[in-house]
Amino acid sequence: MSDLGHPGFGLDDLPLRDDLRGQAPYGAPQLTVRAVLNTNENPYPPSQRLAEAIGRAVAEAATGINRYPDRDAVALRQALADYLGHGLDAANVWAANGSNEVLQQILQAFGGPGRTAVGFEPSYSMHPIIARGTATRWVSVPRTARFEVDVDDAVVAVKEHQPAVVFLTSPNNPTGTALPLETVEAVAAASPGVVVVDEAYAEFRREGTPSALTLLPDHPNVIVSRTMSKAFALAGARLGYLAAHPAVVDALQLVRLPYHLSAVTQAVARTALEYADELLGAVDALRAERDALVEWLRAHGFEVADSDANFVLFGRFPDRSAVFADLLERGVLIREVGPPEWLRVTVGTPEEMAVFRDALLAATGRA
Amino acid sequence: MSDLGHPGFGLDDLPLRDDLRGQAPYGAPQLTVRAVLNTNENPYPPSQRLAEAIGRAVAEAATGINRYPDRDAVALRQALADYLGHGLDAANVWAANGSNEVLQQILQAFGGPGRTAVGFEPSYSMHPIIARGTATRWVSVPRTARFEVDVDDAVVAVKEHQPAVVFLTSPNNPTGTALPLETVEAVAAASPGVVVVDEAYAEFRREGTPSALTLLPDHPNVIVSRTMSKAFALAGARLGYLAAHPAVVDALQLVRLPYHLSAVTQAVARTALEYADELLGAVDALRAERDALVEWLRAHGFEVADSDANFVLFGRFPDRSAVFADLLERGVLIREVGPPEWLRVTVGTPEEMAVFRDALLAATGRA
Repeated sequence: MSDLGHPGFGLDDLPLRDDLRGQAPYGAPQLTVRAVLNTNENPYPPSQRLAEAIGRAVAEAATGINRYPDRDAVALRQALADYLGHGLDAANVWAANGSNEVLQQILQAFGGPGRTAVGFEPSYSMHPIIARGTATRWVSVPRTARFEVDVDDAVVAVKEHQPAVVFLTSPNNPTGTALPLETVEAVAAASPGVVVVDEAYAEFRREGTPSALTLLPDHPNVIVSRTMSKAFALAGARLGYLAAHPAVVDALQLVRLPYHLSAVTQAVARTALEYADELLGAVDALRAERDALVEWLRAHGFEVADSDANFVLFGRFPDRSAVFADLLERGVLIREVGPPEWLRVTVGTPEEMAVFRDALLAATGRA
Repeated sequence: MSDLGHPGFGLDDLPLRDDLRGQAPYGAPQLTVRAVLNTNENPYPPSQRLAEAIGRAVAEAATGINRYPDRDAVALRQALADYLGHGLDAANVWAANGSNEVLQQILQAFGGPGRTAVGFEPSYSMHPIIARGTATRWVSVPRTARFEVDVDDAVVAVKEHQPAVVFLTSPNNPTGTALPLETVEAVAAASPGVVVVDEAYAEFRREGTPSALTLLPDHPNVIVSRTMSKAFALAGARLGYLAAHPAVVDALQLVRLPYHLSAVTQAVARTALEYADELLGAVDALRAERDALVEWLRAHGFEVADSDANFVLFGRFPDRSAVFADLLERGVLIREVGPPEWLRVTVGTPEEMAVFRDALLAATGRA
């Protein structure tokens, strides 16, 4: 009965937008296998103590759940500002259901029909998808062979296309590449609009790698986006946020759906921020595991992109799909994404990485 | 330091879209007063037993919160389908963070640049705002003096504008007016695109008033949207949903942001659905309170629109702002919305309504 008596009715009978026809929903497989290393999750669940604290906070919030949540989520934004430091406060911070929603709101406010967004690819594949979803023209500028953003190319592209929004990513997904601040500064100085620095993986960057948060005082058109999904080990809670000049936050409030952030989400994220030390406690171990993985891969003859994130892009494989499939047969789910001949693996627990290493050697005939 | 050293930087320095300039963020005041009767919330909080059950469900979900949630929210969608009945299953149901997000996804899939949406106003003011946010042209067709949708006018408008999306509302916000099924059927038959019947307040409709759910088998282009914010007393949880042909759900999956619905939201909503009897337990009392309010207002010489919702539109006031302000001074917050000379009041508890009645008599010199 789910087809409601219309078995022949389908997408062609609906007024689907032309640019969506033939598309597939975005998303990696959600499979239960020995090592799930495909969506850059943090492999460490919260402690029982924290899970219970989250439950208590939500039970408390639930006593008033018949009422709408604080529409401006001020307490949560203040807590996020306190976490970021750099003299930021609630007026500088905006939060939504995952950084994807933050980015969508940015494009709804500043992009849209007649506007252009520029990105440097290979990069996070949701950027052009969100551009499409907001009818923003997408201009892709290629990265160098080392997956870096060439600053001269970037400035030329910005001057040529006059984008309302530029997307930079540091560290970049799926390559792991961090940006020098000079590149961000040069792009921000040349840009007529806003420059979003997507720092979803910032907490994993190596010693000495800077954050664009330090640029906010000199470049009020810079927006730094972050997420609690990665280092904070809170992918299931869906909490993305940004830091920027308060005028940017004012602009986003014109396009956000009212009460977009539930009382429950606000309670969960605030509790997690109170337990930041615990949640971020695994970051150092993951960074060490990543660096060891890079070294191991190189020692075994693989090509590896330098990584400041919790994943590693490695290759090259003339038939990467075959390697992906072979690994999956061995219970290891990684990601077929990014440049051809490369694969991406998330840094998991030591046990998961041991499984991955063994499977990779077997899959590539190196065992 | 929140201005980041740029006190003069503002919206004019940002590439804000032209259609957003001069706009204010959507939303009613969030004030703490004696009687909060402005956003059509259900005044009855959940029981301690249910709040604790929600807390336990979230504590359990939190043990795996480092992982992304079920992207397709299948268990929740099945539970919503079971609640709706009518032979629906998970493939017919889609859910998002409030029905506003459901409606935005509908416009992202079917509306957008070059597309038109038609609504019959006065109606829910978020419909044209979401149309603007998705760059969909908005055509407003006036309702009759009794706030009804004239079926001939509606069919003419649909034939003239060939909208990709038509918004109908039943019961309508802010007027409370339900639609005869014949009107929905006539519009659906004439429409080249989809017809959204926004039934946010459906559970409050009077005996004998139908739901458009019964039309789904005959009209696969009809979408019925619902919410858990009103009758379900779950405004703080942000859970909106729809029922439609599975092809509609397929279309929305092309525009939804991946993992848009958190593991926590899914757990909260599923728990609430298990306690549907308790949560919906106050609906009959609220309907009775509403009917009594309508009668009382009419008995005191006010003009009142028939209501199938948990609010009542009443008038007329040459200076409605003065009445609104006077009520607020007396601790009663209602809503200045909809047609000129009318005001909207949410049906609260008997105690809140007594406060409202006294304040209204005083504010209008009838005391």
